[in-house]
Amino acid sequence: MPASNVATRTVSVMEGILDANDALAQLNRAKFDAAHTYVVNVMSSPGSGKTNILERTLEVLGASLRIGVLEGDVQTSLDASRLQRFGVPVVQVNTGSELGGGCHLDANMVWCGISQLPLDKIDLLLIENVGNLVCPAGFLLGEDVRVIVASVTEGEDKPLKYPHMFRCADLVLINKIDLLPHIDFDLNVLLKNIGSINSKATKILMSARTGQGLDDWIAWLNARIR
Amino acid sequence: MPASNVATRTVSVMEGILDANDALAQLNRAKFDAAHTYVVNVMSSPGSGKTNILERTLEVLGASLRIGVLEGDVQTSLDASRLQRFGVPVVQVNTGSELGGGCHLDANMVWCGISQLPLDKIDLLLIENVGNLVCPAGFLLGEDVRVIVASVTEGEDKPLKYPHMFRCADLVLINKIDLLPHIDFDLNVLLKNIGSINSKATKILMSARTGQGLDDWIAWLNARIR
Repeated sequence: MPASNVATRTVSVMEGILDANDALAQLNRAKFDAAHTYVVNVMSSPGSGKTNILERTLEVLGASLRIGVLEGDVQTSLDASRLQRFGVPVVQVNTGSELGGGCHLDANMVWCGISQLPLDKIDLLLIENVGNLVCPAGFLLGEDVRVIVASVTEGEDKPLKYPHMFRCADLVLINKIDLLPHIDFDLNVLLKNIGSINSKATKILMSARTGQGLDDWIAWLNARIR
Repeated sequence: MPASNVATRTVSVMEGILDANDALAQLNRAKFDAAHTYVVNVMSSPGSGKTNILERTLEVLGASLRIGVLEGDVQTSLDASRLQRFGVPVVQVNTGSELGGGCHLDANMVWCGISQLPLDKIDLLLIENVGNLVCPAGFLLGEDVRVIVASVTEGEDKPLKYPHMFRCADLVLINKIDLLPHIDFDLNVLLKNIGSINSKATKILMSARTGQGLDDWIAWLNARIR
């Protein structure tokens, strides 16, 4: 049967790839440690507001902290362009068109990306991963913490349907809460679902659009960096 | 260098997997043809409203057409449960936890799933793919058409950032337009971006929540099935 052959081959190769990825993530980690750079891996569905949150973060923290950004996208440098206006070093990594490689950042891409950044002059490196609630969860990059952005417009059930992603989160930023009056959504159900998958993750309600909750996110970041 | 080894190995194996997938998709296609079943592959980001659209579709078409549903999710059978109340045959396929296999439906999963459906008694099979704007685009399932759901809350730039997905679409359902008054979003920019990636795709504005545009979607489906 061709069916079972395909499945067997996929799994074994992926394990080898993940071993290689983890080894390279440790090399990234050593670079970050040597440069005293704190690294945040930001992950979410497409369109949850990651770039918008980074914009707000740069506005607030850009004057007091030396920040750098690594942007991961399948294609385009639209997000990097949005962030370059803040005058911080930004590197765009395009994950390209290869299946299995295009859907997430891996440690190798980050290794290549940070070679173009002045790490010694960066206190906080914000990594914006490819918008995808499945694949990025499996790939360590060498980061200190993982932040998942969950927009309320995506529904309450996402932690249950994408448990690998939510299980690995240190913080869940629940974004777009300014839209709560306009959608059929039960915030308590989302909070309960996050808790059932990951009882340790911090949860912060915010709207990158209105600025609500931004102080909590900045305080969470500051408490870790300094 | 471990870096280049990883990249080379990933690509070559993925090509083999895609060849095997396409061969199996043709076997699915032969089954669908023999049963006179029209098959729609519905894809989107997580939380764009796919299941909600299927619910509305079953409400409207369930009495006049024999419909079946194949639900793809990484985990849970939440969506299948939502659809079973309509009294149509629903099969849930959980893509599981394996990286490279968990992020999309492939032809093998569909082959297994449809073995549990009475295809001879199904005029229209709706396949709800895993919520993911990257990986599902590469995997033919044997479907007649591909429908991409793009929610306006995800921003205007998604066709440019996820071109593989939008390039393969026969129809783009632009969902959640009831939220347009409450978000910073330029519909003309989204329409232009879709057109720049895929000039042939039909575009329908809708809100599964309010029912706006539902008639257009039903008419589009009906024109193809009958």
